[in-house]
Amino acid sequence: MPASDVSVSELPPRYNFIDDYSEGAHPLLLEALLRTNATQQLSYGTDEYSNDARRLIREKLNATDDEVAIHFVPSGTSANLISIASCLRPYEAVMAVESGHIVSKEAGAIEATGHKMILVPGVNGKMTPSNLERVFQQNQFFPHMAKPRLVYISNATELGTIYTKAELTALSVVCKRLGLLILVDGARLGVALSAPRNDLTLRDLVDLTDIFWIGGTKMGALLGEAIVVKQHLADGFVFHLKQHGALLAKSRLMGIQFAELFRGNLFFDLAAHANTMAEKISTSFEKLGYALAAETETNQVFAVLPERLVRRLQDRFGFYVWEKRDDGNSIVRIVTSWATDALQVDKFNSWVQQWTERDG
Amino acid sequence: MPASDVSVSELPPRYNFIDDYSEGAHPLLLEALLRTNATQQLSYGTDEYSNDARRLIREKLNATDDEVAIHFVPSGTSANLISIASCLRPYEAVMAVESGHIVSKEAGAIEATGHKMILVPGVNGKMTPSNLERVFQQNQFFPHMAKPRLVYISNATELGTIYTKAELTALSVVCKRLGLLILVDGARLGVALSAPRNDLTLRDLVDLTDIFWIGGTKMGALLGEAIVVKQHLADGFVFHLKQHGALLAKSRLMGIQFAELFRGNLFFDLAAHANTMAEKISTSFEKLGYALAAETETNQVFAVLPERLVRRLQDRFGFYVWEKRDDGNSIVRIVTSWATDALQVDKFNSWVQQWTERDG
Amino acid sequence: MPASDVSVSELPPRYNFIDDYSEGAHPLLLEALLRTNATQQLSYGTDEYSNDARRLIREKLNATDDEVAIHFVPSGTSANLISIASCLRPYEAVMAVESGHIVSKEAGAIEATGHKMILVPGVNGKMTPSNLERVFQQNQFFPHMAKPRLVYISNATELGTIYTKAELTALSVVCKRLGLLILVDGARLGVALSAPRNDLTLRDLVDLTDIFWIGGTKMGALLGEAIVVKQHLADGFVFHLKQHGALLAKSRLMGIQFAELFRGNLFFDLAAHANTMAEKISTSFEKLGYALAAETETNQVFAVLPERLVRRLQDRFGFYVWEKRDDGNSIVRIVTSWATDALQVDKFNSWVQQWTERDG
Amino acid sequence: MPASDVSVSELPPRYNFIDDYSEGAHPLLLEALLRTNATQQLSYGTDEYSNDARRLIREKLNATDDEVAIHFVPSGTSANLISIASCLRPYEAVMAVESGHIVSKEAGAIEATGHKMILVPGVNGKMTPSNLERVFQQNQFFPHMAKPRLVYISNATELGTIYTKAELTALSVVCKRLGLLILVDGARLGVALSAPRNDLTLRDLVDLTDIFWIGGTKMGALLGEAIVVKQHLADGFVFHLKQHGALLAKSRLMGIQFAELFRGNLFFDLAAHANTMAEKISTSFEKLGYALAAETETNQVFAVLPERLVRRLQDRFGFYVWEKRDDGNSIVRIVTSWATDALQVDKFNSWVQQWTERDG
Repeated sequence: MPASDVSVSELPPRYNFIDDYSEGAHPLLLEALLRTNATQQLSYGTDEYSNDARRLIREKLNATDDEVAIHFVPSGTSANLISIASCLRPYEAVMAVESGHIVSKEAGAIEATGHKMILVPGVNGKMTPSNLERVFQQNQFFPHMAKPRLVYISNATELGTIYTKAELTALSVVCKRLGLLILVDGARLGVALSAPRNDLTLRDLVDLTDIFWIGGTKMGALLGEAIVVKQHLADGFVFHLKQHGALLAKSRLMGIQFAELFRGNLFFDLAAHANTMAEKISTSFEKLGYALAAETETNQVFAVLPERLVRRLQDRFGFYVWEKRDDGNSIVRIVTSWATDALQVDKFNSWVQQWTERDG
Repeated sequence: MPASDVSVSELPPRYNFIDDYSEGAHPLLLEALLRTNATQQLSYGTDEYSNDARRLIREKLNATDDEVAIHFVPSGTSANLISIASCLRPYEAVMAVESGHIVSKEAGAIEATGHKMILVPGVNGKMTPSNLERVFQQNQFFPHMAKPRLVYISNATELGTIYTKAELTALSVVCKRLGLLILVDGARLGVALSAPRNDLTLRDLVDLTDIFWIGGTKMGALLGEAIVVKQHLADGFVFHLKQHGALLAKSRLMGIQFAELFRGNLFFDLAAHANTMAEKISTSFEKLGYALAAETETNQVFAVLPERLVRRLQDRFGFYVWEKRDDGNSIVRIVTSWATDALQVDKFNSWVQQWTERDG
Repeated sequence: MPASDVSVSELPPRYNFIDDYSEGAHPLLLEALLRTNATQQLSYGTDEYSNDARRLIREKLNATDDEVAIHFVPSGTSANLISIASCLRPYEAVMAVESGHIVSKEAGAIEATGHKMILVPGVNGKMTPSNLERVFQQNQFFPHMAKPRLVYISNATELGTIYTKAELTALSVVCKRLGLLILVDGARLGVALSAPRNDLTLRDLVDLTDIFWIGGTKMGALLGEAIVVKQHLADGFVFHLKQHGALLAKSRLMGIQFAELFRGNLFFDLAAHANTMAEKISTSFEKLGYALAAETETNQVFAVLPERLVRRLQDRFGFYVWEKRDDGNSIVRIVTSWATDALQVDKFNSWVQQWTERDG
Repeated sequence: MPASDVSVSELPPRYNFIDDYSEGAHPLLLEALLRTNATQQLSYGTDEYSNDARRLIREKLNATDDEVAIHFVPSGTSANLISIASCLRPYEAVMAVESGHIVSKEAGAIEATGHKMILVPGVNGKMTPSNLERVFQQNQFFPHMAKPRLVYISNATELGTIYTKAELTALSVVCKRLGLLILVDGARLGVALSAPRNDLTLRDLVDLTDIFWIGGTKMGALLGEAIVVKQHLADGFVFHLKQHGALLAKSRLMGIQFAELFRGNLFFDLAAHANTMAEKISTSFEKLGYALAAETETNQVFAVLPERLVRRLQDRFGFYVWEKRDDGNSIVRIVTSWATDALQVDKFNSWVQQWTERDG
């Protein structure tokens, strides 16, 4: 994912489909920040807005205080490293698919907490029960091998694919049998649960996993991820937050935003918008005869485009060239978001269509 | 510092002098967030607002790009643990006074990065060259003792006291001689540099230390601390940020706020207000015959009050009871901030005066 | 403890009272190594000699397999860092007296496993229930302070003093009440349990503590410490050994030696010899009118001697100058061991006596 | 490598080819321990025998004090974790082939020091320049990916294969170009450098790598590995030893043994014996028509045998069943050592021959 493909000097005139965190926050969240700005609040996670947010999220989870604790952290890397460190003893390892975000996008943050990562071959970016069990069995040479204890998955995955309820249930069953915990990285949980093909609910996550987090940064917040910890793992969790610099003095900042996202249906409405925008682009590509490198299930479109088209598109739109192939084509990644402008999507699609009809 | 003294149920009617992070952000910062909200920006520290903020801070530092790098992190604990981890090899230790924030207010965050802390007796919360050198000499039993390598101080200190230029210069001289680096925790650097008695400049910090940070959370920002790293220590610093979850995707959030704080004189104006408010309270206490447990140099007032007064005050104002003494008095800590309401200060002072004249 | 006082070039003609690990191993242990050398054994702690040693130690402990697990490690620092890491979650801290070995003689080994150390003022090198409880109470500011969870003591202490049964029982009672575990560093457990004033048994350690280790390196072995872990803490312990490089392939090396030490009474006989030698030196000092800086309870004598005597003694005997005082005297540390030559002790005492009578 | 294949109860009558650390030490080393036992020595790496050993090894390295420092540690895992921790800053990663010992045989010891491991596909257990460079290039997404900084190889490899001088030179060239350091795990360096096909010298290792270690545990010592550190990495190394519990008080134990191994040609003679024994077994297998799963270059034979033969062999000889295949055959690993009895090798070969002629 070479950052060099994104040239800063060319950015201003271009519209960006580079990622889903290019803009600030949804206006309703900013309004709430303004409205509450002057009230005096307790700090470090004990403010009333964080408590509001916890209550509202629990309602959506359909879960009680006795089932789950909820904590807010400023970044996805914080969410992952703290969740993992809180689950494992020093000699225990986390298992992840090779394309997993923690494997190669967090600068060794997990290992920096002392834990080994055991890689499992993924299928469409997902962990499968059979691959998981096979690698688990290969890592049982006591005491020479770190002990597999936690399975890390993300939903949606790095490739934008999602887990069905059947898939997550099957994983959960094998994990229970093998004595493994499950963590779900939900940086893009919004678009996953709002995907057309999705049949998972937040309650299912409570039932089928041990700890998961709900991404705010990529779904309309300035920052913030909500970690949902089953009570059997929750003891001492706040110490972990503090120890890793993730317990904000003005925790209200995350509480206020999550309360807005989960008061009504805003979180899911924004996610649905992102998915719809991606689907429009994806459908347009297919209609024009371009192959997709992965099925578009959420807000990421991986399309195979001729190099000549890619270069022309880059004058007008920002996006990552994911992989240059030898056949004159490249795989590009187009990311939409809660903030994606529908007019720009139309412009993008029509621009691709014109080029295809004229120069393709 | 027993949190139990702050009863949540009683808070609403009370005005809080508990800490300097009870409110949101200064309105100018929120306005800037609104104004820039829709622009598309690069991420992870490369947005244009972060670059603006860097430029503006460098102007105030009177330092060039070749001298210092500037990075933003979401919390003071992040700032400290990352700064320390970036300076030290695994067997090197950080030296701090016993009352230092990293010693007992960060849940073992420094040790969690693997480093020993060597305690030095403080004088008014400050590190003195003679105590430093003595403890340094006591920690030279190679290779059985961790190697002292970094001196941590904070300005203002945990007791609200400040370092004079002469004091910091003297420390710097001894550190250079002993081969020690200096880190300044600047969670409250604003009030320190704006204190009546202060004679240090930001440029002095560049000259006399190796790494320091400028606190935004306690000076009008929703969150954020700006770490200023001398270039000899700056290599690879961004990896540390990422590895510890402190590199925000929407780094604009901190860039925008720091740009506002340092565009004109806002940062220092807000700090001066906090100091003035503290001085009014401090002066009032002294006039009424109450002793101070520490000289009021910045925005924290430590006063010795009769228990009876404390209890009555607590009905109307929030603050920490720092220490209960055996003689019927308690030391209380009153903290003012950029947001402190001057009317509430007057109310507080007059309430204390009335009680003293009537019941004292 | 300035190493410079031990000049290498002068060593050969001098007899050393520098430490209790200047010689190799007791001849019976070497013989056993020779005798068993050719047998083929399983490795990594599963050899039959290690199992013999476990059985023999358990007999001396009067404890069953269901009560304790026993593991061997090559060094005291390994024993401490592994024991501590195995007991604590990442945010939990270990409490130790300021003179504790882990505090300043292990190069930050404990902190390198991520854990904070909380210092408690010691009394004669020992942890007292009242100091422990006071410091425990000062470290309860949740979640800003690391959570005190484990108490580290050593018996004998760094000053050569020992815990009585009453003292250890009192500590155990307060620890149970406060939810604290107890670890005993037994680098010099042999001399402690063989001291004239001792009334503790190995069984008492099983009853009153959670994990302790029995030092072999300082009691006749080439290397090796036996960690005794109560079963409630033993799960996964072997992983810790392996992870820290302390699980030797040829674990037989430690198994064979510990089996010899604990087959009969050898371990305690050797310890008694060390104590007797120290007592002879100590008594001689007192008889000649020299003050002791600490009561001689085990194999370390701390005596206050005139500088002139110290310099002359150093021509003939090796020992540490513990502290130079301003009054022309120094505190010296004389250490005896299982290998100390009684003739050299007599020579030392008579040499001191002659000097005193002639030049003192 | 399922440990269950080694049944303890059946061991006594069997002769073991399970590993190369089943016996004690070479008799000359034990004799030296006895001979030197009573001398008083300094400790923690400063004894005269360790200095002798350093001098003797340096002679064999043909290197000066100014080029390399030499330190002794008790285990291979210690050697690896300390070497790696001493080379890397917190965000830097070590690259290793997937079959590397540190990858899955050290219980996460490397990650426990905080460092990520980046896996590279191996060829015959070896790192190739092209695979190395490709994976290096895939790990350059700054600052999201840990920075590749150190290449770990072992010689001989886990599969018993060796690096030629041309291969190591090619690796060294690419590493220099990419800014990577090289560490060689030499647990089996003896058999590698004594292999028939070997053309590397110890001096070559000094020239072509940055840090490497010479295994004693698997070449006739009771324990001990000698780490050879180029001076540019040697600063502070002893602190690392101490911090990880690898600095033995009675360092003489390793010094004495390494001095014996390197005084004359003992180390290489013992290695040659191990190789010869393996070659005899390997040649016998091939003559009888059994395939080898890997070429036998050192002291490990990987042979493909029918399950029926394996089961019968296991009654008489101990060895690992490396992999059960679906075709009725298994890959077994036969390990010889400095202590392997030539008569037992003949017995083994003739037993296999008889079975093959009669039942095969």
